[in-house]
Amino acid sequence: MVGNPGNKAVVLLSGGLDSTTVLALALRDGFDVAALTFDYGQRHALELRAARDLAERSGLRRHAVVSIDLRAYGGSALTDDIRVPKGRSDSEIGGGVPVTYVPARNTIFLAHALALAEVEGAQDIFIGVNTLDYSGYPDCRPQFIEAFQTMANLATKAATENIGAIEIRTPLMKMTKAEIIDLGISLGVDYAHTLSCYDPVAEEGEHGRAAGLPRHCGSCDACLLRKKGFTEAGIPDPTPYAE
Amino acid sequence: MVGNPGNKAVVLLSGGLDSTTVLALALRDGFDVAALTFDYGQRHALELRAARDLAERSGLRRHAVVSIDLRAYGGSALTDDIRVPKGRSDSEIGGGVPVTYVPARNTIFLAHALALAEVEGAQDIFIGVNTLDYSGYPDCRPQFIEAFQTMANLATKAATENIGAIEIRTPLMKMTKAEIIDLGISLGVDYAHTLSCYDPVAEEGEHGRAAGLPRHCGSCDACLLRKKGFTEAGIPDPTPYAE
Repeated sequence: MVGNPGNKAVVLLSGGLDSTTVLALALRDGFDVAALTFDYGQRHALELRAARDLAERSGLRRHAVVSIDLRAYGGSALTDDIRVPKGRSDSEIGGGVPVTYVPARNTIFLAHALALAEVEGAQDIFIGVNTLDYSGYPDCRPQFIEAFQTMANLATKAATENIGAIEIRTPLMKMTKAEIIDLGISLGVDYAHTLSCYDPVAEEGEHGRAAGLPRHCGSCDACLLRKKGFTEAGIPDPTPYAE
Repeated sequence: MVGNPGNKAVVLLSGGLDSTTVLALALRDGFDVAALTFDYGQRHALELRAARDLAERSGLRRHAVVSIDLRAYGGSALTDDIRVPKGRSDSEIGGGVPVTYVPARNTIFLAHALALAEVEGAQDIFIGVNTLDYSGYPDCRPQFIEAFQTMANLATKAATENIGAIEIRTPLMKMTKAEIIDLGISLGVDYAHTLSCYDPVAEEGEHGRAAGLPRHCGSCDACLLRKKGFTEAGIPDPTPYAE
């Protein structure tokens, strides 16, 4: 997967391990990247800080941070006062859609990415979904991504004018977490600056304000998958854990 | 098109002529409706007021008004400081995508409706798009709606659990504006309370605050299509026009 140097792309950037690796990959392949991050009422502003830091470190031309009030719909541990499950086993993590699922989240995220791509004149939209070592979300599956791409190519002004097709790029789709980490290390990603945790803890600085890197809880599904990935990759885990 | 009485549905409600007719139709067919309206940085809060008034008059159980900052992307006369075109001819209105097009707007709106439908346990999503007497938007076409529906049925938790399919209902798709108005009148819709205009004028009340019904500009594409509809339907136009 190599883009034509200078081709514009939109990268969905949460500030987590996967999307940060995807960003590094898109930049390596010469894309002129506009990153898109959502403030969607997730429990922690720490995620937004991680995404902003990463975009800045990568010297991106454009980083849009867009507010979407997903709390208005409810129904998820990531936006509501539902407890994030901790210490689940591999089979529990892989078995069924968990309470951390945010209804229609990737549909909404990709729809917004399509708007930005249309305004930017970008044909490529990168998203860091993967089906191995994932959390059982329906909107991470390849058949969903393919259907979204088909729809996207009927949705836009470019679609009516036969100006190049939109491609939803999912370079991590069939990679394990360990393979993703390996790839990212080879691309120079510093995973200490990424944040995967569903329930992170701010490191307290002076006057109680957040300082330094946010700490991962170490026991939510996202942390467990992340830990497992570093172990399997045989790479020292630079993640600051709270426990 | 008749729903099973009490079945839940989500209706996208802008407060315009089309979506208000769709709402009346869904209620006539016995659906238990949750309406969804977006505050997307459109030029006028008057649109939101019209939608709120209509939801209240209809006695809906739930009306979600959700903020989405489409201004963050730019590229449209409805969200930016681009002049709304006035006094265009029929062939100009039908010829090509106009500057009032908001990039990926219906994709974004339907994605959010899908989230609300998932949380509500609704299988039916109503949207008032139509291809006759329309403004040349790509995301109003039936092939777009069909592709969205296919995607939606791969996107949700229900999709993975084989709980009933999502249906995107577009009852106005093949109706002329005149037919839509005829239908709405038969359903008891008071079109004086709907707002179609891209550039409406607030009726000034005491202390300069908006009062009474917002007035339509009378010459933007939406107003011209609306006027033509009433004329063709042979129904007196109750619309308060500024000119």
